[in-house]
Amino acid sequence: MRKDMAEVLVRTGPGTPMGRLMRRYWVPALLQSEISEPDCPPVRVPLLGERLLAFRDSQGQAGVVDEFCAHRRSSLFFGRNEEGGLRCSYHGWKYGVDGQCIELPSEPQTAPKVRIKAYPCVERGGIVWIYMGPADLKPAPPELEWCMVPDSHRYISKRWQESNYLQGMEGGIDTTHVSFVHRYELDRDALHMNAACKKYIKGDPNVVFTVQENASGMTIFGRRKGEEGSWYWRITQWIFPWFTLVPPTGPHPLAGHMWVPIDDENCWTWNINYYPTQPLSVEETREMEAGKGIHAPLIGGSFRPVANKSNDYLIDRQAQKARVMFSGVDGLGMQDASLQESMGPIVDRSLERLVQTDKAIVMARRRLHEAALAADARNLPALDPKEHHVRSASVLLEKDADVQSWAREALVADQRNPLYSL
Amino acid sequence: MRKDMAEVLVRTGPGTPMGRLMRRYWVPALLQSEISEPDCPPVRVPLLGERLLAFRDSQGQAGVVDEFCAHRRSSLFFGRNEEGGLRCSYHGWKYGVDGQCIELPSEPQTAPKVRIKAYPCVERGGIVWIYMGPADLKPAPPELEWCMVPDSHRYISKRWQESNYLQGMEGGIDTTHVSFVHRYELDRDALHMNAACKKYIKGDPNVVFTVQENASGMTIFGRRKGEEGSWYWRITQWIFPWFTLVPPTGPHPLAGHMWVPIDDENCWTWNINYYPTQPLSVEETREMEAGKGIHAPLIGGSFRPVANKSNDYLIDRQAQKARVMFSGVDGLGMQDASLQESMGPIVDRSLERLVQTDKAIVMARRRLHEAALAADARNLPALDPKEHHVRSASVLLEKDADVQSWAREALVADQRNPLYSL
Amino acid sequence: MRKDMAEVLVRTGPGTPMGRLMRRYWVPALLQSEISEPDCPPVRVPLLGERLLAFRDSQGQAGVVDEFCAHRRSSLFFGRNEEGGLRCSYHGWKYGVDGQCIELPSEPQTAPKVRIKAYPCVERGGIVWIYMGPADLKPAPPELEWCMVPDSHRYISKRWQESNYLQGMEGGIDTTHVSFVHRYELDRDALHMNAACKKYIKGDPNVVFTVQENASGMTIFGRRKGEEGSWYWRITQWIFPWFTLVPPTGPHPLAGHMWVPIDDENCWTWNINYYPTQPLSVEETREMEAGKGIHAPLIGGSFRPVANKSNDYLIDRQAQKARVMFSGVDGLGMQDASLQESMGPIVDRSLERLVQTDKAIVMARRRLHEAALAADARNLPALDPKEHHVRSASVLLEKDADVQSWAREALVADQRNPLYSL
Repeated sequence: MRKDMAEVLVRTGPGTPMGRLMRRYWVPALLQSEISEPDCPPVRVPLLGERLLAFRDSQGQAGVVDEFCAHRRSSLFFGRNEEGGLRCSYHGWKYGVDGQCIELPSEPQTAPKVRIKAYPCVERGGIVWIYMGPADLKPAPPELEWCMVPDSHRYISKRWQESNYLQGMEGGIDTTHVSFVHRYELDRDALHMNAACKKYIKGDPNVVFTVQENASGMTIFGRRKGEEGSWYWRITQWIFPWFTLVPPTGPHPLAGHMWVPIDDENCWTWNINYYPTQPLSVEETREMEAGKGIHAPLIGGSFRPVANKSNDYLIDRQAQKARVMFSGVDGLGMQDASLQESMGPIVDRSLERLVQTDKAIVMARRRLHEAALAADARNLPALDPKEHHVRSASVLLEKDADVQSWAREALVADQRNPLYSL
Repeated sequence: MRKDMAEVLVRTGPGTPMGRLMRRYWVPALLQSEISEPDCPPVRVPLLGERLLAFRDSQGQAGVVDEFCAHRRSSLFFGRNEEGGLRCSYHGWKYGVDGQCIELPSEPQTAPKVRIKAYPCVERGGIVWIYMGPADLKPAPPELEWCMVPDSHRYISKRWQESNYLQGMEGGIDTTHVSFVHRYELDRDALHMNAACKKYIKGDPNVVFTVQENASGMTIFGRRKGEEGSWYWRITQWIFPWFTLVPPTGPHPLAGHMWVPIDDENCWTWNINYYPTQPLSVEETREMEAGKGIHAPLIGGSFRPVANKSNDYLIDRQAQKARVMFSGVDGLGMQDASLQESMGPIVDRSLERLVQTDKAIVMARRRLHEAALAADARNLPALDPKEHHVRSASVLLEKDADVQSWAREALVADQRNPLYSL
Repeated sequence: MRKDMAEVLVRTGPGTPMGRLMRRYWVPALLQSEISEPDCPPVRVPLLGERLLAFRDSQGQAGVVDEFCAHRRSSLFFGRNEEGGLRCSYHGWKYGVDGQCIELPSEPQTAPKVRIKAYPCVERGGIVWIYMGPADLKPAPPELEWCMVPDSHRYISKRWQESNYLQGMEGGIDTTHVSFVHRYELDRDALHMNAACKKYIKGDPNVVFTVQENASGMTIFGRRKGEEGSWYWRITQWIFPWFTLVPPTGPHPLAGHMWVPIDDENCWTWNINYYPTQPLSVEETREMEAGKGIHAPLIGGSFRPVANKSNDYLIDRQAQKARVMFSGVDGLGMQDASLQESMGPIVDRSLERLVQTDKAIVMARRRLHEAALAADARNLPALDPKEHHVRSASVLLEKDADVQSWAREALVADQRNPLYSL
């Protein structure tokens, strides 16, 4: 990739093309549980190169505002959240969730003229989303299937990833690597792996890709050898600008991710499991809370994984040798993160050697690049949340079946549709 | 504030305007107790962007010299302090407190031609002061009242602050914030708070300022509502270039600070308590040693506070909620430091929104800026140590009293004057 | 030294003059014991500003290759070393010790066209050496005496030094400092110090240098007062580009070092002890393993010394005062490292004040500089490994003896020659 194109893709701060593009969408900012009660302590939210603060006011309204007081720039993190707003501890200036200064003790008449940056919030799917773009271009809130199901049907975690968001998201688009770094995980995972599926994934690393571009992003069809006369299809959804839906490998909950810049060298990796029409079992929830599956054990009181770059992800060379873990790193999430972070915070893509299995990645980069250059346009992909109504799937089809025709109806996120999850 | 003016104010290295200004004054370099004995170990002294080393020679003379040997630039920190000088451990070159090389074993005849940077020292008030400016412009040593009292009357501590000196000093000039971040501290502090004073401070955050410029810097009169028909005045002294004297809040020791650059992103915050005419009690000293009042508990063997930026100052959200601590941070010193450091190492003052309670800060910045641009002039403020002979005070006066006239005699640092400390 | 000359000396990355020079020689990359078995885990090898990975394949062949996969630049550190090569964990690309891609699962026909950087290796003297220069200019492998003796005769350690290689190597060239920083070590060291030798070193810090330039580098004759009518000579060998041989101080093993850039702010300090014709005793080996002599105790699982810059090398001021350790730092190796690292990662040599005892250092710098500027020439020093066949020595000679004539035969590394080790 040309260096100038790579620069466009990885820079997401205010005023950058990609930064402007991302600010046209609702941004997942934090878990609702991080500000679970009225007047709870404020929480720092570093996002897209901005330093923000989230709080919930006395009426229960969530607010995401500039971290710093308009007066002399001390951090509102040390402020008091009470009686309808967040008060700076230095000189008592107080702000509402909309950033309006509602009290300026030493000069009451000045208060109405003062405000700090504040972004509109919506709460949906266990997440506080913010809109950081131009007011007149604000789209309707996200409608991914996992957003719309009851809380009982869904489990979400997030972790701090030490790489640019794109390195993470490219992993989410890429089904090929499942045959390698996750290879032995298929045998270990507690989440109901399908035996046939395991066989197909292990048996054929030579994935052939068909990519269908659509108004939400791309549907990525990865074909492996199935049974005699059939193909095993794994179908990933990539939805603008940071959603991926993982093809399932058995009768377990569906899975997805979001890859959201903290700054250009770090990102939030969000991990979602859900059932469209049934609650997660107690045991499933317990496993997820323990960091199994796509989740990861976190350092208490933080979103940093226990196994991380500074400790070589607790690599276990004996488990690697014994074929218990392919790379010696434990867990699907940290297996991906270790490789993505190992490239450095921002990989030099001019040094890559891409092959046909990178087809979906190449196309996603191209679409992101085009959209970034058109970031002020009105017709960007996935602006209409109806375009979110899709699912991932895995399925065994006759060799002469038309998978794209099949997918057209089967992958609509509709409660009446069964899960295709071989 | 314009960015170019801000740059002048915050840059203090050699050759900068503010650096040249500060080098026209005696600089508090370290506590005498850090080099308490002849031939004691040398101590690193980072100051105004320079890396210096302090030691005390066999005759008990203090020296503050370049940290590095003239020969091959290894650190004299690893040197031997003995027999009249500090000897580099690498090849045995030895230096006196004046920086003169007094022994160069392999080439004795070369020694007299070699010297390292050394600054004149005076010891006063428990502190080793150095003069880093042009020899012919050296002023007389400082004569602040707390410098001139017997050691028994004074307690001094210092701590490493992770911000530019000006962010600290602006806090020292600003009495308004006492009504907020220190609000509940007024109820908790062990140091004899006056009940009326508490009432006035809590009752009126709307401080009206009168600033009187004078030859030492500024006297800052902060007016709050007192009793019917009277004003409660809190009077702060700011003395060039880094001294502040805190208005008292009861019959406790007087207090002051010095805000001295380590480099442009860190400063030494010095904390002084003293009585003009009586010794500190055993209990007062014990409290100060424990980090109470304006002092702070330090990490053993260092001047780093236990509660610091890396641990969010051990913020206690429950104590915040319960109105035991306004921000949840404990102690006057760390309450200030947490807010000042939260702005970042060098706050972007072009983003501020100043109001009338910032009047004294605005004036101090302007005077510092003017003086920095005139740093080579002969008539800078507070060069004559007689101008140090002032006190801070707090007092209740009739509304029609002329506080400035009153202050003219009352605030002279003269043993015959009582403390005004309501 | 002029800044431009200093820059040439300290910069060793790809494409720099000094980097090109060093790449004309075999580079000590790692201990053989770090990759002790076929199919062992790969080991990161940062060297001359490059990030490399060493492994040993199923046939026992050592390989040192680029750390990153050609495909999408994830680190091969997380790869699987098995069945004849190192396989990337991300998508299964597999490489041989020669950097050739020998398997590319999703596109087998592409594999032969893919390779990653790989350097030729030789194993000798307990070390894996690599050649990083132009293929047609590869010299014969090193033949330093310690390389050629049986393993039983030799002990080698390495440690990470937090300074440019040249600061370390200049210490290795410089015998003068032994009279100072190592002064009391002479009394403590377990390794059989000669009593007369101690007396001469302590008695005369005023070393007079004669430097003989030769085809391997330089032989450095340091003269101190011996007995009446005799000189005590300490003779150091400096061999291009990073070998030094330490003059012995008694009937203990000979010693040498290598000073090899990790990057421009860090270097590997290699420490070698050996006997030309006899094995090390069990006790000697035990002492060396414990970090005595020129070795240093290391933090388990790393090559970082226990006493290091971050902890002021555990300086013991009481031991310093009591003249047990000259600088208070323990051990020959860390005594040197503490001073060399104290200069900063890259010392500013324009600030030095050199004297006659720095003569050998000045000459070594000049020769390195000349060679760096001629790095592409065919006749660089020490390219022919026969030029490695020299020893260090210490000897007491009549004042009128010609030490250089004496050395011509006595210092040849020939088993028939006795050790001169007073």
